[in-house]
Amino acid sequence: MEIERKFLVRKLPDDLERYASSRITQAYLSRRPTIRIRKKDEQYILTVKGPGKLAHEEFELPIEKAAYERLLKKCDGKVIEKRRYRIPYGKYTIELDLFTAPKELVLAEVEFESVEEALSFEGPEWFSEDVTEDPRYSNAQMAYEE
Amino acid sequence: MEIERKFLVRKLPDDLERYASSRITQAYLSRRPTIRIRKKDEQYILTVKGPGKLAHEEFELPIEKAAYERLLKKCDGKVIEKRRYRIPYGKYTIELDLFTAPKELVLAEVEFESVEEALSFEGPEWFSEDVTEDPRYSNAQMAYEE
Repeated sequence: MEIERKFLVRKLPDDLERYASSRITQAYLSRRPTIRIRKKDEQYILTVKGPGKLAHEEFELPIEKAAYERLLKKCDGKVIEKRRYRIPYGKYTIELDLFTAPKELVLAEVEFESVEEALSFEGPEWFSEDVTEDPRYSNAQMAYEE
Repeated sequence: MEIERKFLVRKLPDDLERYASSRITQAYLSRRPTIRIRKKDEQYILTVKGPGKLAHEEFELPIEKAAYERLLKKCDGKVIEKRRYRIPYGKYTIELDLFTAPKELVLAEVEFESVEEALSFEGPEWFSEDVTEDPRYSNAQMAYEE
């Protein structure tokens, strides 16, 4: 079970370039259920997610580059491109995504071990609105938007 | 982790029609990794399997009929049609598959809780050769064969 919250961001941290980051490209074979392929630096990953925004089942499988390229041809909608920064925050890690395609956008995600923990979480001052349940900020939704 | 062995069958049990059975239709979005969609009677299921024949990771997700139909259009190769009988055998259940498409064939599968149990299993007298590791009897392989 994956439990995560998603936030808009008021401003980027000043020291962003201190943190480790990855280049992510991803696309979708299906939105419901979510079947996603992702290239993360030089790794290729297939992910299937069950329904639910705050909490959902998720299965990840490393795949070959050739499989990624084959599956990419079957994807719907647009390809998502973003750089993901990993920012330690207390016992958590903030994943800060700077999207460059299909549109420019910044989103922060934090993963939790329980729903209770997720609901009691308070983000840093540079977080703004919680958009966990807002479908407009689902990556899959972005890929399928006109 | 799914642990299972697969066998050819010398002859069908005489009392086959006593046992519960399901009509299964399935097709593949990908062979490696295995991404399968299945219609089992009136249920629709997405399955993703990691590598490995005797033992492999497996994730199953119920999907809507509309998702099944959408994904079916993205499938490669041929559609598999079979009737699956569930035959109790001691503490196990034999899944006996009578294929009608893409070719006629009979295969039996048994699932285990551990590799040790799988390796020490002895089937009924109507089982013949163990084909667990034989790629010709993989359902995915059958779908992709010319």
